[in-house]
Amino acid sequence: LSPLQPVKGVRVAAIEAGIRYQNRLDLVVFELVSTATTAAVFTRNAFCAAPVQIAKLNLKQGQPRYLLINTGNANAGTGDPGRHDALTCCQALAEAAGVSANQVLPFSTGVIGQRLPTDRIVKAIPKALRELGADNWLHAAKGIMTTDTRPKAISKSLQIAGSKVTITGIAKGAGMIKPDMATLLSFIFTDASIEQPLLNHLLAQAVSHSFNRITVDGDTSTNDSCILVATGASGAAITSGDEKSLRQFTVALEEVFLGLATEIIRDAEGASKFVTVNVINGGTAQECLAVAYAIAESPLVKTAISASDPNWGRILAAIGRAGLVNLDIELINISLGQTELVAKGMVADDYSEAKGQAEMNKEDITITVDLKRGKASETVWTSDLSHEYVRINAEYRT
Amino acid sequence: LSPLQPVKGVRVAAIEAGIRYQNRLDLVVFELVSTATTAAVFTRNAFCAAPVQIAKLNLKQGQPRYLLINTGNANAGTGDPGRHDALTCCQALAEAAGVSANQVLPFSTGVIGQRLPTDRIVKAIPKALRELGADNWLHAAKGIMTTDTRPKAISKSLQIAGSKVTITGIAKGAGMIKPDMATLLSFIFTDASIEQPLLNHLLAQAVSHSFNRITVDGDTSTNDSCILVATGASGAAITSGDEKSLRQFTVALEEVFLGLATEIIRDAEGASKFVTVNVINGGTAQECLAVAYAIAESPLVKTAISASDPNWGRILAAIGRAGLVNLDIELINISLGQTELVAKGMVADDYSEAKGQAEMNKEDITITVDLKRGKASETVWTSDLSHEYVRINAEYRT
Repeated sequence: LSPLQPVKGVRVAAIEAGIRYQNRLDLVVFELVSTATTAAVFTRNAFCAAPVQIAKLNLKQGQPRYLLINTGNANAGTGDPGRHDALTCCQALAEAAGVSANQVLPFSTGVIGQRLPTDRIVKAIPKALRELGADNWLHAAKGIMTTDTRPKAISKSLQIAGSKVTITGIAKGAGMIKPDMATLLSFIFTDASIEQPLLNHLLAQAVSHSFNRITVDGDTSTNDSCILVATGASGAAITSGDEKSLRQFTVALEEVFLGLATEIIRDAEGASKFVTVNVINGGTAQECLAVAYAIAESPLVKTAISASDPNWGRILAAIGRAGLVNLDIELINISLGQTELVAKGMVADDYSEAKGQAEMNKEDITITVDLKRGKASETVWTSDLSHEYVRINAEYRT
Repeated sequence: LSPLQPVKGVRVAAIEAGIRYQNRLDLVVFELVSTATTAAVFTRNAFCAAPVQIAKLNLKQGQPRYLLINTGNANAGTGDPGRHDALTCCQALAEAAGVSANQVLPFSTGVIGQRLPTDRIVKAIPKALRELGADNWLHAAKGIMTTDTRPKAISKSLQIAGSKVTITGIAKGAGMIKPDMATLLSFIFTDASIEQPLLNHLLAQAVSHSFNRITVDGDTSTNDSCILVATGASGAAITSGDEKSLRQFTVALEEVFLGLATEIIRDAEGASKFVTVNVINGGTAQECLAVAYAIAESPLVKTAISASDPNWGRILAAIGRAGLVNLDIELINISLGQTELVAKGMVADDYSEAKGQAEMNKEDITITVDLKRGKASETVWTSDLSHEYVRINAEYRT
């Protein structure tokens, strides 16, 4: 982990509320200064948990002052009672902190289909507020973990027009979904000042280049949420008018997002490999993504990678079913790292199993597909499909 | 296996040609009477093997008299030399049998990316022709196996206007694709007389209700082929004018197709469960299929089934990401066998883990999703995702 830097205008606490387990950080509160702007993206799954529904409503009604995150229970598949429970927790925090309930955004991750133990959360809120501080980021990163094996947090600083600006983010998630222990959650904060429309744009763009380009199992979650907060407390402003600062800031912001996203892949359930799939020279970004996901989500490609098998036939077959119109397989080149596997749809002349094996033995695998039909390119990241993945997901509830 | 009945007008042989292994049936020849009509459907994968390309061409040019099938080598990813090799084999069989080369349809399954050992196939053809007989069906079913653990063959007979009509089919496949040992192949024969347009229609319809409704891993193959032959040798004719006979015949034909398709799922790689996914009361057939495949291809649902875990949250989450417009999750009911799991998007009132567990412990699992938004319904069949699946697909080449 890079050293985590405080973000002016944000205080955070992580405590043990005993939601599902004892002796485990499971309740995290972020407090934001009143000048903060907040942007959010949520799961597109139609089966969307109660806290996501409430957070969306509250975002429309006011500027958030608190983020309230619990693990141990996803409050998903809980209908009206679940929405009531999420509101109860927001109300309790709002009263203790002296804000209105719609200035609290709730987030939950954990078991699906069980009522949230609101009594334990409500009881723990005063302690969480007492413990708010500028430096509890690593605790917060630990406090939002479920089946993650390690906390995920990144900081970057940069100078914008003479002021130091910091970006610090945390994330959790070890599969796109853990249907019992749902979710990818990520919270990124900066002390720059950024107005709402630009903040929304920066979030959408950063997510599309990071969290929306990773896949463990193709399953999306009921609770996925990504939040970007700009407190303005550093005194520096990012505006679309100042292109140089905007570019600098965007680069740093996307490094934080991509760093968190790739940390999730590296910690994916049962993962033994970190796989980058580059698709280049496609007709459109969309067709590059279709090919990249067909490869990244193919159980057969993923099991081959798990076994360090340079199985180019499986990659070609995945490309072939990606649905591209008039795709000419006999134009395609595929490389594994620096080794050319396939040239013009056939095994490359100078390819040898020894070369392919050497690339596949690495922990970081890069597959590059050259479609030779245009100028678009896209990258997605994934993990392998291992015995361990099946074990974790088969045995999770037993 | 039901007793396999000969089909008038078809002779078959299965022999050992030593294509990849010794002491293994690996070359199958079907001989068709000159009155036979033949319909075919092939993989839609853009990465389509040489024999598929040649079979498509030959079908346009004449009435097939011979089907030539080899295992051990898929002749896929082999470019121009591969097409040449497939033609060489067709030519050799045509010369020995006294027909023209475009009356031979080639089929291959096995390793991808290696040249076909045409010398061994050409050398074995005279023996195959000498051994042609009416009763070698079980040998043929064995002769097209690759990683299948058992042969798949079904016969049905019925009376059409006083004549006995027989339908006998064989199939192979243990995953939708084995990129090294590619493929689903199936060959179904009847001695009824059926003209080409109706035969094409019957094949398309039967495939859409059977082979196109099964999924092991969502991967399609480079070599998938399904052939329906009507020899006319029984003397009975099936026509669109005689609705009663057509209906009787269609029912029997679809029983053969569905029987072969479900045999493939029961023999799927690493499968320990046979899973039927029914989606009812959808707005359109297409949206029912989208939901059914989202469930049937979800690694998380499939690992839960492997562990006999009645994990309804994973099923709801799969439904939620199937892309249905304005889907109201809080209308949905889900049953497991006769047990209601989910009512109105939440766990059913009278559901208990004990009831769910009892259903999940069965080998045959039926998941029924009631979308409550229309009158369409669809069914797909799948298997579970087990340790054994990963082992087979990870270790296949090692």
